[in-house]
Amino acid sequence: LKMNLPGQEEFEVSSACENVPTGELDSGPGSGPNPDGPSDTDRGELGVPKDPLLFIQLNELLGWPHALEWRETGRWVLFEEKLEVGAGRWSVPHVPTLALSSLQKLRSLLAEGLVLLDCPAQSFLELVEQVTRVESLSPELRGQLQALLLQRPQHLIQPTGTRPCQGSAHPREASHNEEAPLKEQRQNPLRRKLPPGAEAGAVLAGELGFLVQPLGAFVRLRDPVVLGPLTEVPLPSRFFCLLLGPSTLGKGYHEMGRAMAVLLSDPQFQWSVRRASNLHDLLAALDAFLEEVTVLPPGRWDPTARIAPPKCLPSQHKRLFSQLREVKGPSARHGALTGDRYGHWPHAPSPELQRTGRLFGGLVQDVRRKASWYLSDFLDALHPQCFSAVLYIYLATVTNAITFGGLLGEATNGAQGVLESFLGTAVAGAAFCLMAGQPLTILSSTGPVLVFERLLFSFSRDYSLDYLPFRLWVGVWVATFCLALVATEASVLVRYFTRFTEEGFCALISLIFIYDAVGKMLSLTSAYPIQSPGYPAYGCFCQYPDLGGNESQWMRTEPKDRDDISSMVRKVLGDFSSVLAMLLGCGLDSFLGLATPKLTVPSEFKPTLPGRGWLVSPFGANPWWLSVAAALPALLLSILIFMDQQITAVILNRAEYKLRKGAGFHLDLFCVALLMLLTSALGLPWYVSATVISLAHMDSLRRESRACALGEPRSFLGIREQRLTGLVVFILTGTSIFLAPVLKFIPMPVLYGIFLYMGVAAISSIQFTKRVQLLLMPAKHQPDLLLLRHVPLSRVHLFTAIQLACLGLLWIIKSTPAAIIFPLMLLGLVGVRKALERVFSPQELLWLDELMPEKERSIPEKGLEPEYSLSGDSEDSELMYQPRAPEINISVN
Amino acid sequence: LKMNLPGQEEFEVSSACENVPTGELDSGPGSGPNPDGPSDTDRGELGVPKDPLLFIQLNELLGWPHALEWRETGRWVLFEEKLEVGAGRWSVPHVPTLALSSLQKLRSLLAEGLVLLDCPAQSFLELVEQVTRVESLSPELRGQLQALLLQRPQHLIQPTGTRPCQGSAHPREASHNEEAPLKEQRQNPLRRKLPPGAEAGAVLAGELGFLVQPLGAFVRLRDPVVLGPLTEVPLPSRFFCLLLGPSTLGKGYHEMGRAMAVLLSDPQFQWSVRRASNLHDLLAALDAFLEEVTVLPPGRWDPTARIAPPKCLPSQHKRLFSQLREVKGPSARHGALTGDRYGHWPHAPSPELQRTGRLFGGLVQDVRRKASWYLSDFLDALHPQCFSAVLYIYLATVTNAITFGGLLGEATNGAQGVLESFLGTAVAGAAFCLMAGQPLTILSSTGPVLVFERLLFSFSRDYSLDYLPFRLWVGVWVATFCLALVATEASVLVRYFTRFTEEGFCALISLIFIYDAVGKMLSLTSAYPIQSPGYPAYGCFCQYPDLGGNESQWMRTEPKDRDDISSMVRKVLGDFSSVLAMLLGCGLDSFLGLATPKLTVPSEFKPTLPGRGWLVSPFGANPWWLSVAAALPALLLSILIFMDQQITAVILNRAEYKLRKGAGFHLDLFCVALLMLLTSALGLPWYVSATVISLAHMDSLRRESRACALGEPRSFLGIREQRLTGLVVFILTGTSIFLAPVLKFIPMPVLYGIFLYMGVAAISSIQFTKRVQLLLMPAKHQPDLLLLRHVPLSRVHLFTAIQLACLGLLWIIKSTPAAIIFPLMLLGLVGVRKALERVFSPQELLWLDELMPEKERSIPEKGLEPEYSLSGDSEDSELMYQPRAPEINISVN
Repeated sequence: LKMNLPGQEEFEVSSACENVPTGELDSGPGSGPNPDGPSDTDRGELGVPKDPLLFIQLNELLGWPHALEWRETGRWVLFEEKLEVGAGRWSVPHVPTLALSSLQKLRSLLAEGLVLLDCPAQSFLELVEQVTRVESLSPELRGQLQALLLQRPQHLIQPTGTRPCQGSAHPREASHNEEAPLKEQRQNPLRRKLPPGAEAGAVLAGELGFLVQPLGAFVRLRDPVVLGPLTEVPLPSRFFCLLLGPSTLGKGYHEMGRAMAVLLSDPQFQWSVRRASNLHDLLAALDAFLEEVTVLPPGRWDPTARIAPPKCLPSQHKRLFSQLREVKGPSARHGALTGDRYGHWPHAPSPELQRTGRLFGGLVQDVRRKASWYLSDFLDALHPQCFSAVLYIYLATVTNAITFGGLLGEATNGAQGVLESFLGTAVAGAAFCLMAGQPLTILSSTGPVLVFERLLFSFSRDYSLDYLPFRLWVGVWVATFCLALVATEASVLVRYFTRFTEEGFCALISLIFIYDAVGKMLSLTSAYPIQSPGYPAYGCFCQYPDLGGNESQWMRTEPKDRDDISSMVRKVLGDFSSVLAMLLGCGLDSFLGLATPKLTVPSEFKPTLPGRGWLVSPFGANPWWLSVAAALPALLLSILIFMDQQITAVILNRAEYKLRKGAGFHLDLFCVALLMLLTSALGLPWYVSATVISLAHMDSLRRESRACALGEPRSFLGIREQRLTGLVVFILTGTSIFLAPVLKFIPMPVLYGIFLYMGVAAISSIQFTKRVQLLLMPAKHQPDLLLLRHVPLSRVHLFTAIQLACLGLLWIIKSTPAAIIFPLMLLGLVGVRKALERVFSPQELLWLDELMPEKERSIPEKGLEPEYSLSGDSEDSELMYQPRAPEINISVN
Repeated sequence: LKMNLPGQEEFEVSSACENVPTGELDSGPGSGPNPDGPSDTDRGELGVPKDPLLFIQLNELLGWPHALEWRETGRWVLFEEKLEVGAGRWSVPHVPTLALSSLQKLRSLLAEGLVLLDCPAQSFLELVEQVTRVESLSPELRGQLQALLLQRPQHLIQPTGTRPCQGSAHPREASHNEEAPLKEQRQNPLRRKLPPGAEAGAVLAGELGFLVQPLGAFVRLRDPVVLGPLTEVPLPSRFFCLLLGPSTLGKGYHEMGRAMAVLLSDPQFQWSVRRASNLHDLLAALDAFLEEVTVLPPGRWDPTARIAPPKCLPSQHKRLFSQLREVKGPSARHGALTGDRYGHWPHAPSPELQRTGRLFGGLVQDVRRKASWYLSDFLDALHPQCFSAVLYIYLATVTNAITFGGLLGEATNGAQGVLESFLGTAVAGAAFCLMAGQPLTILSSTGPVLVFERLLFSFSRDYSLDYLPFRLWVGVWVATFCLALVATEASVLVRYFTRFTEEGFCALISLIFIYDAVGKMLSLTSAYPIQSPGYPAYGCFCQYPDLGGNESQWMRTEPKDRDDISSMVRKVLGDFSSVLAMLLGCGLDSFLGLATPKLTVPSEFKPTLPGRGWLVSPFGANPWWLSVAAALPALLLSILIFMDQQITAVILNRAEYKLRKGAGFHLDLFCVALLMLLTSALGLPWYVSATVISLAHMDSLRRESRACALGEPRSFLGIREQRLTGLVVFILTGTSIFLAPVLKFIPMPVLYGIFLYMGVAAISSIQFTKRVQLLLMPAKHQPDLLLLRHVPLSRVHLFTAIQLACLGLLWIIKSTPAAIIFPLMLLGLVGVRKALERVFSPQELLWLDELMPEKERSIPEKGLEPEYSLSGDSEDSELMYQPRAPEINISVN
């Protein structure tokens, strides 16, 4: 079964948006235990060679009876491009639509026509001779036809998609050596878009008055050869199809030619016809195609409308799967439905998150697993893409270090500052990149830690404590607790962090960002007021326009067009937009000479707090017992660090990113604990993984398929997993400490603007926000979200309301003196989610959130039968192949 | 031929976006002269009764074998709605997609099954008895089946589309009187959406294990009857289809049921099956449907994707036309291609624009034509819609009067002012509404006239002339010239105003708006500077945030959702957004206590200029000969008035608006001339038709089809053409003069903001702007505009560049002392357009612009053959049925 299934070969080509692991088909209930599934890189393992990509071209015979000429009027790889004669250009790629009748006419023409499979022709001349050897043609007609077929066709060759080069479309006399490809053909930029080994299929169709009856011929060449100037790209041709006839059919030949081309562009038909041994097989392949076509009724759909290529190609697996299901029955579906976020099956949880039961067992496993990749972690970085990633992430990191440093300096009254922020970022970040389990992680001061540090500082100020020594002991305790968590393999609990928890956490951070940015800005208006006529002037013009400028710049560049490779300039501008926005803000500020508050930066390399050395004294002015009492805040901070670090790690290690080298939850936490010790001792800020920048880092290291067939979305192959980019970024950050003299020109409102943007962008990207919008939207205007198709609106609203209530509670706690227990409440989110299992059914939670480990396992037994029996294939299969996008998918730019 | 063509009856229902007159089919070259074509209101003239609308419902048999129940899982009128079981609601309407195989299975089931045409059953019981009278059923099975069929099905009845009412979907025991419709059925809000006379079609499908072989039955009832609780709406059922069978087919019955329902929802199939007399006819109708379906290849299209209903339904005429073409050949297409903007044929130009050759002949004709409608012009206003139109246009008019009055007062140093603006608007507008040829026109001071008046004022100031008497003579001469233009029927020349001219004019006005608004704003920054720290403070905070607020508010409400009838609040907010934006601006201004320049308004009802009476003295301090010299500027102003008035009139009288009462170009100009005299004598502003507000007026008076089948775009029936709304608007405007005390709180920057918006909105809406954007856009990112499919990009760019050059020239002239000859240059645009015929081919101009009268006529002879032979039906047919949207389609709100 496995060996002969068509479409598997196609997987590599069309897997652009698939997140269903290839193990799916093999690990169905019928095929026995197979926990890991085969790797998705090699499909040629069974000895079946991958079929090459096929470029199909339709040459039409035009101008009967006076000025016969062949002209290329359509081309296909995955989608169709039509020649727009008037405009002299190729149309945009679109989903081809056919008339059913043209497929049927084609079928009958092929059934009566000439079918040559494995034709041994070595040149176009030979091929033409073979094809015209039909008894219905008189020798004279045969000669005429051969001459006509050998006539050089006209191609519209577009140089790099900018302006049509009309010259090359002009007819030219075929003078000598018909078989050699022309210069235009060889220089065709389309050639570069096709992968090496691609083959061509040529369809020749048209009305030819001197024929008495239609002439149909289908040829599969045994050895593909370049058929001279026949196709616009000089690829070896595998298929050749001739559809000519008297004028009775009118435009029929054009449509039949298109139908043939569309058939050839279908992977399953192609698969079958490459293996067909006679006419019967060919017609059977056509019938199989017809079995699967989608039909649109004539009165409700304009057949001339062009359908844009779908963002996600329908999976060939899906077509295969529908065949499988007929064999295995509905139970085969459940595996796919309940695959967890790691793309594994419920019965085989991710190996990284399996408890070993030994002390530090997880850590040891992590180290072992990562050690085997360690050398490749440096070798894999040898790619030009990594250079641009370094530049991009460096800028983001510096911006972050400046902003957080500035805020931290303000919050701790100078005990921390920009200098510490730079130094700490560089040291901690570089160390983490060298040691961590997930070296793609970018360490940074994050919002919640900042909030906690602010609380800690005001506490120590209120009780007149010596802040840094007190902080040192908190750090020591946190490190101890974290090591205990590593020892007990507590990180396996991240399986309980579902989207509910992630979104609650993310929404809270975002709201803190937004609230702080707006609050700071408003507080500025009293210190630096807007001038009103009655008041004496001592202040300055406020920053509204300034901020507005940043805002729009940030927003505009947000939807990053990945397809765009032609304009480099555009992308570079996009990559640097954060820096540009900052520069614009700073420039405007200094141009207008506004008296804004500026970033306070030290002019020399010494701690911001006057009079302290780099090493924090262990006790300072504090009593000795404070080092013990510090354990209490440390406990809370530990929870916070654990949550913050692990939620980020969960997001980064999602199955969507196709990471090969695996995660290292235990090792990461171990590193964070060690760095906690180091930064506390040196009086530097505390660091955990930062979701947003780390995602941007991964994003800039995407590996994508080079060969991009016309209209096909570039397929995502994985991430360049390595340690070097991060390391270089942090070394650069370290050297940037000497940029300090420049940094003091940055007005604070510019930084607030960046934070406002980060908050808004992060909160806009989560599903929770969409559901909150649903609360306010009349049903008529609601988008056709998949979850709304499956969960009653009232239940969706209930879920959203509970999330909102949790968020409100967290916010209230954060704003009261009880703020110190805030990390506990964050942990409480997981408990609330657990309790929701009593309120919502597993099906509802599957749509609204994800399933927690135990429930996941119970689903296959309980089953989704009642729904299955009603809504049928159409709905559920969508779920199966719907790519799950990362929940928090903003990039820093 | 004509009588039996299916689909003509459908025209009334599906003509939502069609601008092709129904005359099309009758006035083809083959059918002889028929210049006017039949009116498009009555299609029942030939005695063929219109077929009623069909509501189709699919009841599925679920729960085999234990808990059999019927449940409604799909419904159709034009599009499909699926039951979303999990969510307990109906899906959004979408284009149905079918598997070809299910259509084929259905065909064979019907071919072997029971087909009862004109079945005399009077109740569901009788029907069930007839349907189950099949020899393959044993008496016992028959009884079982009958009981099953009579079981009450479950419907999901959604109250007004907001929240699903789950209660009604619960099974209920069918207790007594099976045949009477249920309360839920009668109260179903869906019923109100279906037009009176609608019929139902019920499809019952499912898997029934005790059957040995499939059971298919298709019934057409002779007299449609309400089949008890069978359908969710208690409509009389015309069709009944039963598709049951053993479980071998699996989900096949569900898909076959959908296929049957989609077939019944197809107008042509429905037409045929209503008239079918035997099984053969039924199958032939199915085959005809199959002939026309569009096929999407399986590998490139996910069959589960839901396709949103197209904005414009494919015309049934088009399907008909494709049949016609086979008879008549390609030449039948030309008429459609070259139909001019009035929807008439080139050989029969619009009667309003035919020269009579007699002095004042056009005017006399206009008066005669409009006189016959005069009574109806008042009676047709008796509709509640007119009330809201009055409110809406009143607000726009007042805003306009304030804004233009304020600008005019500034431009003429108080010779004109807000009071004159109000008075003039009221008097001129009301008079025009009573007398004009096109009473939907809203008169207003327009940009170009304002520019001209500004020039005239600075001229008279430079030469120390008495402005108002000088202006009076200019007005007298303009009126004279305009009357001469009326006498010579010069208005027929508007046929030469193509899109090129309209867009040039519109772009210029928009740019003037934008330039003035920005310029004024910048000039304010010197008088009311932004506070910088070094400067002494005497001014105030500038209006940037103020303007920004307006801007976004205006922009956000721009895309007006016409479909939205459920939320009234939303629409009212949208309608009042201009007023709200103004109020917001004024409120913010007074809240912050900013010292902005305010609108200068007189506190009492007397002319703004101190010391003058209402009647302007004919000479004042000017020499007598100035009254003769005034003829020179008046000549230029006449051209300007003519262009401004007639371009607007051309836009308003477009065929898209389906005006029944015709235009009155000559009469309109005559009225403008008389009002010119009046306003000059009273020292009031000059008025011509204002494009933007007039379009908004028409927009608010749209007549739309009430019956809005699920997912169907509401079809546009025409405009409530009458004189009353305009009249009432201007009477209200007149009484608003006493609002003057309130008006002086409006800061000038708020008005500038409104003007900036108007300029930006108008310039964004024209195709010219899209083409300018194309100049800067790489080909890859260009939208798939129809014109780009047919005209080479380089030619499009050349056309745009010429337009840009013309615009630049106009702008330069406007800004130099030569500005006074500006109107002449405007006229020059028509000349340039004429000259373009030497540069561009007629085909290119057809796509880029429109054809001028002579060229239009020449096209059918020359033909478009070369292109036809290549690009085939698909492209050209799009042109034919592409609705031509109004070029300048912003509304004031």
